[in-house]
Amino acid sequence: MGGLSGGLTADGPDAVDPDVLWARAFLSRVSEPTNIPVWDFVRRVGPVEAVDAIRAATAPPDVLDATASRRATADPDADLEAADRCGVRLLVPESPDWPHFAMAALEHAALERLKTYRTGTRTHRESGEEIPPLALWARGPLDLAPIGVRSVGIVGSRASTAYGEQVSSDLAYALASAGVVIVSGGAYGIDAAAHRAALAAEGETVLVSAGGLDRPYPPGNASLFARVAETGLLLSESPPGCAPQRRRFLTRNRLIAALSTGTVIVEAARRSGARNTAAHCIALQRTLMAVPGPVTSPMSIGCHGLIRGDGGLGPALLVGSAADVLALVGSAGEGLSGGEGGGAVTDVRAELDDLDPAARKVFEGLAARRFARPDEIGARGGVSALEVIRALPMLELAGLVESSDAGYRIAGRVRSAR
Amino acid sequence: MGGLSGGLTADGPDAVDPDVLWARAFLSRVSEPTNIPVWDFVRRVGPVEAVDAIRAATAPPDVLDATASRRATADPDADLEAADRCGVRLLVPESPDWPHFAMAALEHAALERLKTYRTGTRTHRESGEEIPPLALWARGPLDLAPIGVRSVGIVGSRASTAYGEQVSSDLAYALASAGVVIVSGGAYGIDAAAHRAALAAEGETVLVSAGGLDRPYPPGNASLFARVAETGLLLSESPPGCAPQRRRFLTRNRLIAALSTGTVIVEAARRSGARNTAAHCIALQRTLMAVPGPVTSPMSIGCHGLIRGDGGLGPALLVGSAADVLALVGSAGEGLSGGEGGGAVTDVRAELDDLDPAARKVFEGLAARRFARPDEIGARGGVSALEVIRALPMLELAGLVESSDAGYRIAGRVRSAR
Repeated sequence: MGGLSGGLTADGPDAVDPDVLWARAFLSRVSEPTNIPVWDFVRRVGPVEAVDAIRAATAPPDVLDATASRRATADPDADLEAADRCGVRLLVPESPDWPHFAMAALEHAALERLKTYRTGTRTHRESGEEIPPLALWARGPLDLAPIGVRSVGIVGSRASTAYGEQVSSDLAYALASAGVVIVSGGAYGIDAAAHRAALAAEGETVLVSAGGLDRPYPPGNASLFARVAETGLLLSESPPGCAPQRRRFLTRNRLIAALSTGTVIVEAARRSGARNTAAHCIALQRTLMAVPGPVTSPMSIGCHGLIRGDGGLGPALLVGSAADVLALVGSAGEGLSGGEGGGAVTDVRAELDDLDPAARKVFEGLAARRFARPDEIGARGGVSALEVIRALPMLELAGLVESSDAGYRIAGRVRSAR
Repeated sequence: MGGLSGGLTADGPDAVDPDVLWARAFLSRVSEPTNIPVWDFVRRVGPVEAVDAIRAATAPPDVLDATASRRATADPDADLEAADRCGVRLLVPESPDWPHFAMAALEHAALERLKTYRTGTRTHRESGEEIPPLALWARGPLDLAPIGVRSVGIVGSRASTAYGEQVSSDLAYALASAGVVIVSGGAYGIDAAAHRAALAAEGETVLVSAGGLDRPYPPGNASLFARVAETGLLLSESPPGCAPQRRRFLTRNRLIAALSTGTVIVEAARRSGARNTAAHCIALQRTLMAVPGPVTSPMSIGCHGLIRGDGGLGPALLVGSAADVLALVGSAGEGLSGGEGGGAVTDVRAELDDLDPAARKVFEGLAARRFARPDEIGARGGVSALEVIRALPMLELAGLVESSDAGYRIAGRVRSAR
């Protein structure tokens, strides 16, 4: 595999064991993305041992089932060589450029789902899609390791309107100029407008493709793929040669959500793939945002539904500008980013001054760092727990409060402004 | 006052005592709207006795202060005669056509504020604007008594865009066609588009004016005022001859909010009078709705801020169609209106089917009629109280759940659909 050194880290000081690389390439070929038995088996025994067991047919039955159709014909050497010929390298969890920070939420979700899977109450299909990738094929100079700290997904309809493309473009340009990595899916419409604007701003952009990186999809965006590869990064879970299939678009969406601190949906029809990305965002506890549009446009319906929280998805936070997005992803990446300027500080104070007396009391019952439960907040603020419960959603939507499984606390942007 | 019989109910079987009418006309002239000492004094001693005491200078000092500037020159006979000459009659709480149902929320809020006022912690200026009118000048055939059951306020910017006018017009036309009374303020832009569309649909519309009804404001909408008076109703808290002043626009806004089951804000700039109407809506526990628009338009900023709940106002419910509005005001007027059609029932079922498993459990922990607290809901649904608290806002925003001071229950539109 000496011929692979150009794109790989295999020969550098942080070299990945070639056997591990070979094993991950094999797994990437024989297993469809988000197969929980395969992921779990690799996690428990390691990639090299897992591949040995799969090839020797000694792996657990569900792992053998999941890999049955392709394990006889898989040729990792050929895949790695084909990748190298088109400038594609293989990122693996064992390499230093693996996006561990961004993938942590997928790991966490997968471990949670594993509990349910093991108790036998659900099959792996029903257990959802929040499973980390086994490996990622990559092309381009961008270092993926720090991603997830200050990266924003911008996705939306392929059948976009001029309005949606303008919004996508304006957002991506301003965010990329502010140092935010723009993540999208390389599709026509909203996705392409976001990538192009990030490139125009000389910013960083990551394009996550549903098929192999030697097959830009849609073909009409081939030159966009090539431009992203020059300064940003093309990513795919599938090895070269794989066709983009419907299922791979859905699993691809989870990677966009995972790689982004928050994702903005710009234009989506009533039934739209954007709902799938939104669901991943929520499942991964990422910040879900949506841009409203004219109610007279069918391309606004999906975003408005997300903002309303229709069907149990969301609610998505309404954003209308890059400043809105920065205020939200700024607090999500708090402590890791540079924080906000003086204007935002003044805004926060004005917002606090504008609170009605009841909401103000609830806010004053919150702790700055520690998450508190509603009854405790009520006791500290001198209001009933029910009043607390009724005020919190508004405070959270206004970005003044943030929540976790442990309760509620003052939002990061407010802490830094006070 | 025999000459007043044309427009007044004074001579009918439900005749109002002429002394009461005269006293209310006097009060309408000498007191600015929303003066809490005057309203409270009239409430306690009755209008005739209150006027006697004001004229004899034996009323409480704050009442005498509030009526000092005009009580010497007030001429109720002249006001009633001037009104009659332009087809205007005086509605009073003692007459059968008084909108008691719609005014109940103002009464309730005023009684609450009175407690604070009496304890001396606030002056009447600080105590807010949620005080019922002492009387209402009216012109037009529409019966106001049942209003508030199925009436929708549609208000927004005077500097509206073609988009906003189209949305206002489409909403008002469809809602008026469905039997909803359209309430607005007669201003240029969004208001005028709403009134005109209601008239075009041969529906019912109420125009609440900030000045006397003999002075249409803005004068450019004089023909609109005249058309509304033919089939709908013009309303004003001020007697004929009163100029529309800034303060009267604000107190007028509370009447629009009170007379409407819910109010839709269609277009509003960052600083907009619509925020004032929205605040009244919230204070009166009416349904506050807002229509989103292009984020590229300054006229969308106010609505998007309301949907987000910026500054502690709202959050307003996002609506994009008359069906959205009907679903919301339908549940508010539940039991009094005809309910929704089959399409809405199907929608509710689809929404419930779309819920994620956690939200579904929370929903299943709710009671249909009785309001339950989160811990009880959690116990019934088999989820933690914190999970309940986190799911409820989304369920409420989706219109699946409604809340009161006593807790949460399944929303009316869902109960009727199941």
